[in-house]
Amino acid sequence: MNEEFKVTPWDVTGKVDYSKLIQEFGTEPIDDKLLERWRRITGSVPVAMQRKIFFSHRDLNWLLDKYEQGEKFVLYTGRGPSGHTHLGHLLPWIFTKYLQDTFDAPLYFQMTDDEKFLNKDELAMKDALGYTYDNTLDVIALGFDPKKTRIFSDVEYSKTLYRISLEVAKRVTFSTARAVFGFDNSTNIGMIFITSMQSSPAFLPSVEARKNVPVLIPQAIDQDPHFRITRDVAPKMGYYKPAAIHCTFLPSLGGSDKMSASKPESAVYTTDDPKTARKKILSAFTGGRVSIEEQKKMGGVPGVCAVFQYYYYLFEEDREKLNQREQKCVRGEVMCGECKQELADRVVRFLEKHQENREKAKDKVQDFIVSDYSALYDRLKKPEDKKEAAKYKKAMKEYYSTRDGDRIAIGKTKELEDK
Amino acid sequence: MNEEFKVTPWDVTGKVDYSKLIQEFGTEPIDDKLLERWRRITGSVPVAMQRKIFFSHRDLNWLLDKYEQGEKFVLYTGRGPSGHTHLGHLLPWIFTKYLQDTFDAPLYFQMTDDEKFLNKDELAMKDALGYTYDNTLDVIALGFDPKKTRIFSDVEYSKTLYRISLEVAKRVTFSTARAVFGFDNSTNIGMIFITSMQSSPAFLPSVEARKNVPVLIPQAIDQDPHFRITRDVAPKMGYYKPAAIHCTFLPSLGGSDKMSASKPESAVYTTDDPKTARKKILSAFTGGRVSIEEQKKMGGVPGVCAVFQYYYYLFEEDREKLNQREQKCVRGEVMCGECKQELADRVVRFLEKHQENREKAKDKVQDFIVSDYSALYDRLKKPEDKKEAAKYKKAMKEYYSTRDGDRIAIGKTKELEDK
Repeated sequence: MNEEFKVTPWDVTGKVDYSKLIQEFGTEPIDDKLLERWRRITGSVPVAMQRKIFFSHRDLNWLLDKYEQGEKFVLYTGRGPSGHTHLGHLLPWIFTKYLQDTFDAPLYFQMTDDEKFLNKDELAMKDALGYTYDNTLDVIALGFDPKKTRIFSDVEYSKTLYRISLEVAKRVTFSTARAVFGFDNSTNIGMIFITSMQSSPAFLPSVEARKNVPVLIPQAIDQDPHFRITRDVAPKMGYYKPAAIHCTFLPSLGGSDKMSASKPESAVYTTDDPKTARKKILSAFTGGRVSIEEQKKMGGVPGVCAVFQYYYYLFEEDREKLNQREQKCVRGEVMCGECKQELADRVVRFLEKHQENREKAKDKVQDFIVSDYSALYDRLKKPEDKKEAAKYKKAMKEYYSTRDGDRIAIGKTKELEDK
Repeated sequence: MNEEFKVTPWDVTGKVDYSKLIQEFGTEPIDDKLLERWRRITGSVPVAMQRKIFFSHRDLNWLLDKYEQGEKFVLYTGRGPSGHTHLGHLLPWIFTKYLQDTFDAPLYFQMTDDEKFLNKDELAMKDALGYTYDNTLDVIALGFDPKKTRIFSDVEYSKTLYRISLEVAKRVTFSTARAVFGFDNSTNIGMIFITSMQSSPAFLPSVEARKNVPVLIPQAIDQDPHFRITRDVAPKMGYYKPAAIHCTFLPSLGGSDKMSASKPESAVYTTDDPKTARKKILSAFTGGRVSIEEQKKMGGVPGVCAVFQYYYYLFEEDREKLNQREQKCVRGEVMCGECKQELADRVVRFLEKHQENREKAKDKVQDFIVSDYSALYDRLKKPEDKKEAAKYKKAMKEYYSTRDGDRIAIGKTKELEDK
């Protein structure tokens, strides 16, 4: 790993050199030829690919071959629910929504609450499950098709996932896992296993269809190590290797790193109220000069400017307008304050709309979430006596429920309660 | 570990020195004072404890304190289903049945098919699940109370167990697991995690009762390493440390090692037909001399005799009669052929009865087995259209069924099929 930056599934630091990352991870760059093919098949190239926000892939040409031969693929992506969702998280999900719409593809969306629980000392299980619910609202708010989308918590879907993950785990040695993830003696034994659970949904479509189903995993590039393992074991399990498409990280408002949950001011969260969001944008690091005079004379530097990056990644889809903004900055024709105010307006508009959809999502959770059933459920259905039923209801409610997330696990018992 | 013998959860070799094992593992011997207390509380001391077949424990006095204070305990034991059951496996289960009857204790019986699958290169998942069913019949045949006994496969009960196992895994570092189990670079990442799943049922009674419940784990001594970890993490999770009672291994018919699945002639399996069982006993290693003359003159050596050990462990409950048998052997008054014939008769009688109960057990499986439900079950109940329902039924049947073990997972769908 390069000394100036570090990219692992749990830690991104330094200024990431994405070309070097392609070499180090051994992925393929998305080149013009591939973009041309994409345009030929789908009719257009999305902005995120034009701008190389999605810049790297594995086996995309193979996937498109399959697609052209009539083998439809399934999308698989996910989220580690250790806190609220920020705009950087939305980036690959928005792209995944585009993929679902364009290719009419089912989506399996995994909430790795087991992994986050294992990896964060201070994170309790209830809180991880609570964030699963919280983050699920953001996914749903983006407009995925409930008929084609399945969102699940690893903990709540473990009857389905664990069995597949055993097939993965049997084929991965400790030395492989250590080489890929850098484990040491103090790593807990859950973290050593957990990549198996992250592989599992890549094989679930094939398990369910009882035949090989191609899978595409849109993801931020830091997740690639997991899927290197998935791809390694796939042929040994008799399945296709999943294809992957990787995006870069939305830069921090404070500079060039990935947004970080440990510095809440470095990112805009979907749960931020408009005032907070505006304040964060107005305090962002820019490519401006020390004084207005100097900026008018020398121009700004969009290349290091977090505000410009926000336009580039999410808030200026029009190529011509983005160019104009860049040129005006370089020529000293626009000051940072104005540029930030305009971005703040756009971010707030986006947030208001998203938060409205997020509220509506609360009534749609049942249409998206799948979770397995505890055997206790069986006893609830056929209680031998009322006292026993009451006991199990209480146990199930308290143990399997989550802070805000009652709907996920407990929805199942609602109908019983009502009886 | 002593160089002359080795005892791990996956491997027992050499002539085991059980006193040394108590020192190495750090357990307590079951002494006369404890036996006296046992007699005071229960009214008698079972043969297996008198003979020090159950010879070691952890926190038994604490457990009896709790019992005397009115806190009833739950029993937890299990089996790694990698083949048919032999008489050596029955030993702790028969004792567990005695404990259930004596203390009116619920029993959680775990089939670690996940662990066996991970640990045996050649064992397929379907076969591990098949052996879970096969071995379940032997457990039921021993006469456990269905109202107080829960038998489960780790794979099929993973929705319930996995969440607890995460709480365990978070608190166990790789270096601890390596020190306890001797893992190396080639160990697969599932095996590193799996001790968490074996800890899980020790906490399940407390999770379900939402208060601390004492647990006693009857087990062969080779399983102790797992429960050292369980006991380490218990206070960190806010639970009681489970107590343990350990038995020695029924010796091999070929000599002094533990019975071994890799040498089928060294053990009598519950599925052996009477002819095969008889042949195995008649070919057993004895403490006899090279000729009848010599044996009459010098006497036999019961101390090294597998046949005598069988009487000692399972086939002569009467202390006086066992003494007489030993004395007659030592004095050269009985020849090995006669002793073996008599044992063979007893083993065959036992087997015939057990196999009869085992057949009957096939109709009782549903009363003992608990398993969680895949989310697919939900779709089966509320199919959106008939074609979809048919597809899921088929997928569920094929994927979740086991060779002989349909009843375990598939019983659940039977009612649906019949509709």
